[in-house]
Formats: sequence, structure tokens, C-alpha cells
Amino acid sequence: MPVNYATPAPEALHPVAGVRLGVTEAGIRKADRRDLTLVELAPGSRVAGVFTRNRFCAAPVLLCRQHLETGEIRALVVNTGIANAGTGEEGLQGARRTCAAVARLMDIRAEQVLPFSTGVIMEPLPVDRIEAGLPRCLTALAADGWHAAAHAIMTTDTVAKAASRRIEAGGRTVSVTGIAKGAGMIKPNMATMLGFVATDALVNPLLLKRLVREVADESFNCVTVDGDTSTNDSFVLVATGKSGAAFDNESSPGWEGFRDAVVGVARELAQAIVRDGEGATKFIEVAVEGGRTKEECKAVGYAVAHSPLVKTAFFASDPNLGRILGAIGNAGLGDLDVARVRLWLGSGGEEILVAEKGGRSPAYREADGARVMKPAEIRVRIDLGRGSARGQVWTCDFSYDYVKINADYRS
Amino acid sequence: MPVNYATPAPEALHPVAGVRLGVTEAGIRKADRRDLTLVELAPGSRVAGVFTRNRFCAAPVLLCRQHLETGEIRALVVNTGIANAGTGEEGLQGARRTCAAVARLMDIRAEQVLPFSTGVIMEPLPVDRIEAGLPRCLTALAADGWHAAAHAIMTTDTVAKAASRRIEAGGRTVSVTGIAKGAGMIKPNMATMLGFVATDALVNPLLLKRLVREVADESFNCVTVDGDTSTNDSFVLVATGKSGAAFDNESSPGWEGFRDAVVGVARELAQAIVRDGEGATKFIEVAVEGGRTKEECKAVGYAVAHSPLVKTAFFASDPNLGRILGAIGNAGLGDLDVARVRLWLGSGGEEILVAEKGGRSPAYREADGARVMKPAEIRVRIDLGRGSARGQVWTCDFSYDYVKINADYRS
Repeated sequence: MPVNYATPAPEALHPVAGVRLGVTEAGIRKADRRDLTLVELAPGSRVAGVFTRNRFCAAPVLLCRQHLETGEIRALVVNTGIANAGTGEEGLQGARRTCAAVARLMDIRAEQVLPFSTGVIMEPLPVDRIEAGLPRCLTALAADGWHAAAHAIMTTDTVAKAASRRIEAGGRTVSVTGIAKGAGMIKPNMATMLGFVATDALVNPLLLKRLVREVADESFNCVTVDGDTSTNDSFVLVATGKSGAAFDNESSPGWEGFRDAVVGVARELAQAIVRDGEGATKFIEVAVEGGRTKEECKAVGYAVAHSPLVKTAFFASDPNLGRILGAIGNAGLGDLDVARVRLWLGSGGEEILVAEKGGRSPAYREADGARVMKPAEIRVRIDLGRGSARGQVWTCDFSYDYVKINADYRS
Repeated sequence: MPVNYATPAPEALHPVAGVRLGVTEAGIRKADRRDLTLVELAPGSRVAGVFTRNRFCAAPVLLCRQHLETGEIRALVVNTGIANAGTGEEGLQGARRTCAAVARLMDIRAEQVLPFSTGVIMEPLPVDRIEAGLPRCLTALAADGWHAAAHAIMTTDTVAKAASRRIEAGGRTVSVTGIAKGAGMIKPNMATMLGFVATDALVNPLLLKRLVREVADESFNCVTVDGDTSTNDSFVLVATGKSGAAFDNESSPGWEGFRDAVVGVARELAQAIVRDGEGATKFIEVAVEGGRTKEECKAVGYAVAHSPLVKTAFFASDPNLGRILGAIGNAGLGDLDVARVRLWLGSGGEEILVAEKGGRSPAYREADGARVMKPAEIRVRIDLGRGSARGQVWTCDFSYDYVKINADYRS
């Protein structure tokens, strides 16, 4: 059960002019489930992406990086069930064959296809089944295929994740719609977080490249711990230009509103991944302020969000706040003056100062801590007291079910 | 239930001439349990220690560092139940009062006492109860008090941890005996790993200082993940000199054998902590070779040993080896050539090559992987294929009980 999240209704996902999506049951790993998705992009679409930094990155990630260099992307193909990671040279060939199959069907070049895979690592990709399924995806292509695609890219996700916004920019209506998958938090389970966001605005290619990084930094990179990027993590941003709205640079009229819409969609997707985190019963924001740099704020946020002791305490609704102090002390800030650190815990409209001057706040009462720990959404606020930078991380708690899901998976 | 570990019998713990230990029930946090330990060291004893790098380090750690600078240590005092961490200025005063109380009783200076605390963070230390209990510890002081002390420093440990060796050096019999506590692995629960090892050899002070670091590096620093050192972690090495054997430098006769004995005792204690890890059902060695430096080998070992996905797979006896590859790829070795990495899995006398050339080894059969994953002791061997350095890390699996212990703790 995700924490305060439900998939938007199909009609809430605005079509993006120039994007059509089609899904099918290709039988990649399990029968009777939609597991193959084809996304067709109109000619002239611009695409930018950010990918995992894991050295054992998956074959499709290697191809995505190559194909983004070479030219105009016209299709995305996504399979679930098999990650095609840890598959060596054979895996690369499988990803290439997949792109070639899409290219043949759509009469484009293989380099114009971006492949994505998610699922079990170290198992071979059943390319024959993908080839057999692709014609059905092609037949199914539709502008309102977002909802179906959000379902077809799931692995252990318990809900499909999608978000959509519509804004006015330069007298035009611009749509931004996205889908994502991923249900892990400490490490995305099945080793994959995938995010796809498209808009029908026209965006200068260099600007789009910068935007995808900034958006990732403010959304998906706030939910996965940096060191734990998986073998297949991918986030792709598509701009078809079909709405007529155009952004050439950051001074273009309407840019701020457009950027906010893209960030908003990506954040909604990123937070949905946490809300659907494996075994999650709580959604936790760790907001860090008073740092020298944004990076150190995020490092502290990650240290707290990543600590199994902190996460199990949240699961138990136990205000064991010393564990949070311990995590802050472990964030690698060698010159941190702990006497200046302040720590609040909040939920609903309430916020309680729990620690200051290196220890428990004199006014703090455990009953207050216990009360704010109860709700399903909790905010940890940390003031490092050494600067004016900020950063935040979203995470979930750590429950019996996390172990169950990850110990039982594959069996 | 610890994995293949039982506390040695009292008579297996050799007394160390010049060291006496006494314990009592001081009622620090719970009734009817021995929770206060006093260790008396003969005049002339030399002491060196290594301590947590956590910025929120506990008050006793701050005092230990100060007191080790100033002079000849004559006593250690250890309480369980309360960690005296995250307690600010009041905590420091509590630790100082504890040292002063020991000093009064033993007619020494407060600076000659090293204090240690373990237990809940952010709770005040009940110094009155410690002061009231100390005279009983003094009365109980005995050379054969090691077994009782090993029990009295426990927190969530399910077994007391102790180790002892006796060797010949320079015609003298030298004893090395130690105790430790800690039952966490990802992070020591109750925020503490404590280790105390004593010998009746005489060791040059500078040599002892170097030795304690080297020994920690080959024992306790192989079981806790570096970034996760807790607020109270302490490891202290005492050399009383009472056996008559003396080591002035690394060329002194018998040094190698003596060093091996100290490392051996510390390793046994460190491994006992993992074997008694919270919820542990398996003991796992991650041995990394073929690295450019020992540090990068350990970084890879930690990345594997720290991955919740790897740990839950071990709990499930599931040869989900892609998770290990994923963890290796996340170890921060930006220029790692994954095509040169080889991965073996072993147990008993058997070892199986499971991955090479960036993917699954052609000869690997899942039935073989499942077989070597079954036993309670498993060895992961990784060849990075880029040098001749080595390093290893010991860890345990990640079970339902880990969550249970950490979610229920304090309640």
C-alpha cells in the first residue's frame, strides 16, 4: 500500500502532441502481463537523458548514451521482467537487436531508438519475444496511451506512477506528462528506476540537456541515495515542439512556468516512487538548511535517509532521535560543530525542536516526539548552523515487508 | 542465535598480570543486570586507543581522548544502558564525575581513568547510581574477572564476546585477553562497539599506538562500515608489562608472534560481533583481491557488505548475484573495467566462478549457486583485475529480525 498515493485517472494524463504509446503482453518473464512498451516520437523531437553512474551499467544504458549522441530520437522501447544488466557482450547484442527491430517496423534507423530494460539482473534478454510483441505495440500506439504505459513498465511497484500538468506559455497550451517506475528506496529493487517525461513545447537542445540534469537533481536525485544508483537508472525528457510554444533560452517568455511544470511532474513521480517504496508505511522528508553548500546539505539528508536505524525507528513511530543525531554525525562533514546543529521533527502543521547544543532540547518531551512520529507523513528539519544553503531528500521507513519483498523476490 | 559462536568458558580466558576486573548491578537502566564494570591497571601500564570519527561522538569518547594524552592510565570504567551521547555539556560533566568517583576510590587522578558508555543515546547518565555501584566493583576486582566483564558490557548482544591467547616470547609467557560488545552490523545498535584487549607484555608507547591502529584496521574496521562508525565506538589496547616480555620496536624478538596474537584476539572479537549481528543467520566474508590499493579493495568489500539487497538475498539463500555486481559497480571506482572483474561464491571447501567479462560465467549453473548459498558461512571472492592489493570485510545477512530488533528496541 503506497503512502498517500494513487495513480491518476487516465483522463488526468494530458496527451502530449507528437507522442504516442502502445503496450502489449510479450511474455518476457511472466504470462498475462503487459511488459513491452513502445513510445513513438514525432520527427523533430528533442530528447535528453541522465543515466546511472553504476560501473556495471546495463546494456540498454550504454546504447542510450550512444544513440543520444548520434541523432534524432524517434522511439523509446521499454521492457520489464529482465534488466539486461550484468549480461556482457551478449546483452549489448540483445539491446541492439531490439533497437533494430523497432527501426524496421517504424522505418527509422536503429540509432534513433532508445532502449530501456528493467527486471532481474544477469538473465538473458528474450529478444525473440520482444521482436514478436513489437508489431502489437505498434498497432496499439495512441496519444492517450500514458496510463497503459505507466502500468506496463512496473516491476514490484504496487501502483502505476504518472503525473501531468498543463500550462499556458506564450499564448500556447503546453502539456507535460510523465511516467516512472521503481519501488525501492535504499536501492531501487530489480535495480531500476525509470522515468519518462514528455512535453509538446519546443526546447533548444542545449537548454534541454541542462534542464534534464537540473530536473533530475530536484526530483529523482532527491530520492535515491547517490552511491546507490543502480545498473539501469534512466530519466529521459522529450520535447516534441508540436504545441508551438518554443523556449530558446532561460529568458524566453514563460520559461519559469514551464520549468516549474517539468520539475513538478518529475517531483511527483519521484515522490511516488518513495511513497510506493518497498514495504513503506511512512513518507519522510529530510530538509536540511544552514549548510555551506547544497551538496553538504544533501549529504546530511542522505546520511539520515539512508540509516537503517533511523528508518526502523520511523517504522516503529519511535522518537529515537539520537539515531538521527548519530546519522548527522556520520555524514562526512569533518568540521561540523555539533553544538550549532538544531533538529526538528514535524508532521501535520506541528513542528517540535528536539535537539540543540549537542543534546536534547530542554523543552523537548518524549510525548511530543511520539505524537509527531505517528502520522504517515513526517518532516525532519535540520539546521547545520554554518551557512545559508539548503537541500532535501525524500525517503520512506524500513519495515518487515522490505525484508520480505527482497528476500522473496525471484522465488 | 549467533552464527557459529559461543562465549569461551571462564577458564579459557587467561588472566593478564596487572589487570583486575570487577562488575556490579548498578541499576543504570534496568534492574537485576550487571551493568557497571571497573578495570584496574597496574602502575606503569601503557594504553592506546582508537575511537569513533562520528562528529556527534559521546562525552566519554571526548574524555578518553583527553586522558590518553595526559598521562598514565590506571583504570577503565564501563557502563551499559546509557550511551551518554547526544547529551551536550551535561553529558561531559557526567563522564567527568564518573572518572572523579573512580579516582577517589582508587586514590588516583581523574585523568588516569578512561570512561566508556554504551546504551541509549540522548538520555542523561545516572551518575549517582554509578557512584553508588563503584565500591562494589572495587570489592569484586579479580584477575579472573574477564568472563563476568564480558557479560556486564553487553547491550542487545545475545552472547558475551571474549577471546584469549597465550604465546611464548623471549623466554616469557605472554597473555593476550580481550572482550567486546556490539550486536549491530550495518550500524552498531545502541550506537556502540566497545573492544578492550590487554596483554602483560611491555610495549614501547609509540609502538603500542601504531599497533592499536593496525590491529583495529585488521579487525574491528573490517566489520563496521566506515561511514557508519557510531557515537561511542572505542577500541583500547592495554600493555601492563608484568610478564617481563618487552617489545621496544618491530625488530624485537618475538614481535611477529605477539602481533599475530593481538590481531588474532581482536579478529575473533570483531567476527563475534558479526556472528551475533542483529538478526544474523549467516556469516559472510567478502574477500577482494586484484585491487590497486587496499583501500579500494575495502571500499568494494564495504559496498557489497553494506547493500541491503545483497544482505536480504543472503538471508533468502538466493544466488541473486546480479545484486553483488550492482554493489561492486557502486563502490565509487570510477575507472573500474567491469569486463575484468571476476566473482566467486564459496562455502565449505567449494568455490564457484559466477561472473566474468561483465556478465554471468558460461559455466555457472544456478543450482551450484543455490548450493553454496545454503550454509551459515559464505565467502564472496572478488578479483578486480587491476592490481595486487587485497582487503576483506566480514558481514552478516539482513533478516526480519533485524527490523524487529531495531523497531522494538526501547519499547
